[in-house]
Amino acid sequence: MSQLFVRTLREDPADAEVASHRLLVRAGYIRRAAPGIYTWLPLGLRVLAKVEAVVREEMIAAGAQEVHFPALLPREPYEATGRWAEYGPNLFRLKDRKDADYLLAPTHEEMFTLLVKDLYSSYKDLPLTLFQIQTKYRDEARPRAGLIRGREFVMKDAYSFDIDDEGLEASYQAQRAAYERIFTRLGLEYVIVAATAGAMGGSRSEEFLSPSPIGEDTFVRSAGGYAANVEAVVTPVPDAIPFDDAPAAHVEDTPGTPTIESLVAFANANHPRTDGREWTAADTLKNVVLSLTHPDGSKELVVVGLPGDREVDMKRLEASLAPAEAEPAGEDEFKKHPELVKGYIGPQAVGRANTGDEEGVRYLLDPRVVPGTRWITGANAVDKHVFDLVAGRDFVGDGTIEAAEVRAGDPAPDGSGPLELARGIEIGHIFQLGRKYAESLGLKVLDVNGKQVTVTMGSYGVGVTRVLAALAEANHDDSGLTWPAHVAPAHVHVVATGKDAAVFAAAEKVATELSARGVEVLYDDRPKVSPGVKFADAELLGVPLIVVVGRGLADGVIEVRERTSTERVQVAVDDVVAHVEELVRAF
Amino acid sequence: MSQLFVRTLREDPADAEVASHRLLVRAGYIRRAAPGIYTWLPLGLRVLAKVEAVVREEMIAAGAQEVHFPALLPREPYEATGRWAEYGPNLFRLKDRKDADYLLAPTHEEMFTLLVKDLYSSYKDLPLTLFQIQTKYRDEARPRAGLIRGREFVMKDAYSFDIDDEGLEASYQAQRAAYERIFTRLGLEYVIVAATAGAMGGSRSEEFLSPSPIGEDTFVRSAGGYAANVEAVVTPVPDAIPFDDAPAAHVEDTPGTPTIESLVAFANANHPRTDGREWTAADTLKNVVLSLTHPDGSKELVVVGLPGDREVDMKRLEASLAPAEAEPAGEDEFKKHPELVKGYIGPQAVGRANTGDEEGVRYLLDPRVVPGTRWITGANAVDKHVFDLVAGRDFVGDGTIEAAEVRAGDPAPDGSGPLELARGIEIGHIFQLGRKYAESLGLKVLDVNGKQVTVTMGSYGVGVTRVLAALAEANHDDSGLTWPAHVAPAHVHVVATGKDAAVFAAAEKVATELSARGVEVLYDDRPKVSPGVKFADAELLGVPLIVVVGRGLADGVIEVRERTSTERVQVAVDDVVAHVEELVRAF
Repeated sequence: MSQLFVRTLREDPADAEVASHRLLVRAGYIRRAAPGIYTWLPLGLRVLAKVEAVVREEMIAAGAQEVHFPALLPREPYEATGRWAEYGPNLFRLKDRKDADYLLAPTHEEMFTLLVKDLYSSYKDLPLTLFQIQTKYRDEARPRAGLIRGREFVMKDAYSFDIDDEGLEASYQAQRAAYERIFTRLGLEYVIVAATAGAMGGSRSEEFLSPSPIGEDTFVRSAGGYAANVEAVVTPVPDAIPFDDAPAAHVEDTPGTPTIESLVAFANANHPRTDGREWTAADTLKNVVLSLTHPDGSKELVVVGLPGDREVDMKRLEASLAPAEAEPAGEDEFKKHPELVKGYIGPQAVGRANTGDEEGVRYLLDPRVVPGTRWITGANAVDKHVFDLVAGRDFVGDGTIEAAEVRAGDPAPDGSGPLELARGIEIGHIFQLGRKYAESLGLKVLDVNGKQVTVTMGSYGVGVTRVLAALAEANHDDSGLTWPAHVAPAHVHVVATGKDAAVFAAAEKVATELSARGVEVLYDDRPKVSPGVKFADAELLGVPLIVVVGRGLADGVIEVRERTSTERVQVAVDDVVAHVEELVRAF
Repeated sequence: MSQLFVRTLREDPADAEVASHRLLVRAGYIRRAAPGIYTWLPLGLRVLAKVEAVVREEMIAAGAQEVHFPALLPREPYEATGRWAEYGPNLFRLKDRKDADYLLAPTHEEMFTLLVKDLYSSYKDLPLTLFQIQTKYRDEARPRAGLIRGREFVMKDAYSFDIDDEGLEASYQAQRAAYERIFTRLGLEYVIVAATAGAMGGSRSEEFLSPSPIGEDTFVRSAGGYAANVEAVVTPVPDAIPFDDAPAAHVEDTPGTPTIESLVAFANANHPRTDGREWTAADTLKNVVLSLTHPDGSKELVVVGLPGDREVDMKRLEASLAPAEAEPAGEDEFKKHPELVKGYIGPQAVGRANTGDEEGVRYLLDPRVVPGTRWITGANAVDKHVFDLVAGRDFVGDGTIEAAEVRAGDPAPDGSGPLELARGIEIGHIFQLGRKYAESLGLKVLDVNGKQVTVTMGSYGVGVTRVLAALAEANHDDSGLTWPAHVAPAHVHVVATGKDAAVFAAAEKVATELSARGVEVLYDDRPKVSPGVKFADAELLGVPLIVVVGRGLADGVIEVRERTSTERVQVAVDDVVAHVEELVRAF
């Protein structure tokens, strides 16, 4: 410790919101170089190397072969698949001295596809899975939480190449199983959830989430075993309701009711239900105007109709509309569309099917708005609403959309019971890409009959630096980090306390003997640092075993304790090395 | 080999000029992704990992601690040291989504300086040496020779921090010694030459060159032990010559003599020497007009005066004028300076000291142009030259410059004999930076008296990917690569030939048993590939030992040979594993 390039900090960094960020900086593992861009100090690099080693071993065990692609790549392959545009401002773009376009790769589907196309030509060459552990770039709008959402980060990305769907399924399962082994070995709790493919394209994907209250991903699970990212939750569609005997729609004056809350109150006061119940927000149809930006920069307005008791979940909405990005429509856009009367929008004035205007604003409905459902909704005039408006009779949508928030208690789509919501950190994501990239880039091989067939692909990512952060989130207490033994920067933290030369000599002997037996030791040999500071540092750094050589030495004992336990064991000086070695072997 | 992601090529890639590039691509070690940007295939990555491991081990043995910096860095630190501008078009620059300036780091002096400033504050913290093995970027004007001059490449860069010059010298020597061990362990011949500091700044630097005819660096050495990069060669300055009895300068008509050759011929024909010898080019003073571009974009003309038998060496010139870049002046520039009469420029019309014009073109002299030397040179008018123009009497320079080419036979500056010239690949470069970066960025620590002192630094680089290329340059023959054992992608290449199942079974047994003994085996188990193709691939790939299981098996023998030898040894089947293992242990 007297030589190690590390300085622990007593104060939390000002920009640190989450424990992993706070503690990794305070304990001298990482250091901020720019927003979302970090430098790895010696202790951090040791942990990172251990995480990488586990990932690499399990990739190789799963039959994947390691390669390494550049981070700086030419535009053309990404142009061919449309991702140069689709990534929008998330992509770091630059020009070289000859004014040629380059990018810093956020992921490498294109390059792997082209490499395999370059080298392979026959079904006999497949299946093939390649991987790399590589530095990636993403110009996040809001880099946050330290390593959890960074702009330069380390990923393991793997890609599988198969001749048919069956092969892809097998390659996918092999990676899935490798991921389970990786996170198990790392001691990181995980949940596998169904996910949407997002910008990656493809047919099927699952995320590995590390449950954590600070996670950016919300996921749902049911007691019956269903689990999905909220973006992937499919709303069960209710049966249509007969509406032959439904009353006709009728417009009512509803002064001062631009919000759902005011509307419900007004309706209960002035137009009570006939069945004795109260109107609730769920009886209203809310119409939300959204402005989409397509990858080519073009803009489009859409209106989403959903039950008034649910908010639009922007992440679900964007997953449904990807690669377009969405935001609530602004005043300017309302001005351009006088038919959209803010606070009083109703389906009868919007939607191509309803208005007959082929160029009009699209109207997309929540799946719950099935034919026969009756709604109180805007009448497209200030202070007016329409009652008993029946879906399928009085209006239709131009399509449905999964945009409404998912709530605890909602039914699982597979009927396995009510959903509960939790948050998680995305630590892995596996995709069945199918033929999207192979088609765009012309990756074909000869099949057994000598016919050219397009290869089918999978892509599989582990956020290596994010995994390290997730480990820190899952393993800390108020005093600092509490690393699982296999990723800790050392096995044992030997602390010499006091000023007595005999103490330092004994501590050094313990450290040296443990090292000789293959135990990784961090030895705090700092001569003029108080015991209190040394203990605080040991707790902050989070090495799993702490050996204190100090006052007890006069009585022939050395203290051994586990970082996560309050128990202190006094071990005879001559036994301490064997004792500690045994504890380490049992890790 | 039937599973390995590799395809060997029979044809040289069209853009490959040098053996390492040609063979690394043909043998499936690397693949071009863009100009100067390469992808590492599994075999290449194995070799790279071995080179990196040696570098890392020797850095740690030398007391350096490993860290890892981002490649994507903000502009500000590089602005503070002036390198944002100095790097000119060699720097990859980009903007993030907030329009902030970033760069892809070509080297990390600034970041290391700031990190140490951030964490350390006392002389007690020093000495400190940090290193990283990291991907670096340089937008080369002419990326060439594969990995030798790339735009994305791997470097080991280390930085030392000391309180005083003595400490810096010790840190420098420790790195220098580590470099010697690294290249010795890698089996790579090297020469250490004195070098100039270039854009890095600082006081002293040495390069490690791997001698190679395709090297980009020319260096000199004398039998007496002097060695230097040509840029660093200091011309021995002759003694001044008394000129009291020298004849007065006289202008002569020399029609049609714009070149040195035509001038010498004319002078010998029309104005013969009085001592019976012939005039030679060495008697003429050539004045070369150069256009400099300074880092801030401003331009400047300078005239360099040197003996007519020597050319200007642009690399030496640029090293003398760094960070300015130079090129021969163009017609436009001559037009703006009518006093510069092309082909007939003489010192009397150029130079601030000669003309008295403080804003005029600077005139820089070769160190050989000492007072008393007499010259035939331009008279600043077409078809006119001046004879017996004496330096120090008739003209002076505004300074001297090391710009003339160095030639074989020139005297070594330290008097250790005539120089010979050779070419080398720069594989390492060590610098005593001194206080340049620490001053620019304010890195000070308290000294033993409690006074703030500026830290002195060194920087030390190994081009890791370039070392791999240098190894390939130094280790190949007409058939392919011939790796030194310690960096080869495997120790043994087992080849099964023919179609006999017994052969494949025996070969697999040998491969498996060798692997079990810790020998790294590449096993060519391809079922339908001819022996000729397999042998050619084995020679191309360059694994040091080749074991052929084939026809001999019927007679109970297996062939063992070294890649670089024509000798074939027939070993009894039961002995082959032990025999090969012994050879591998002896590597």
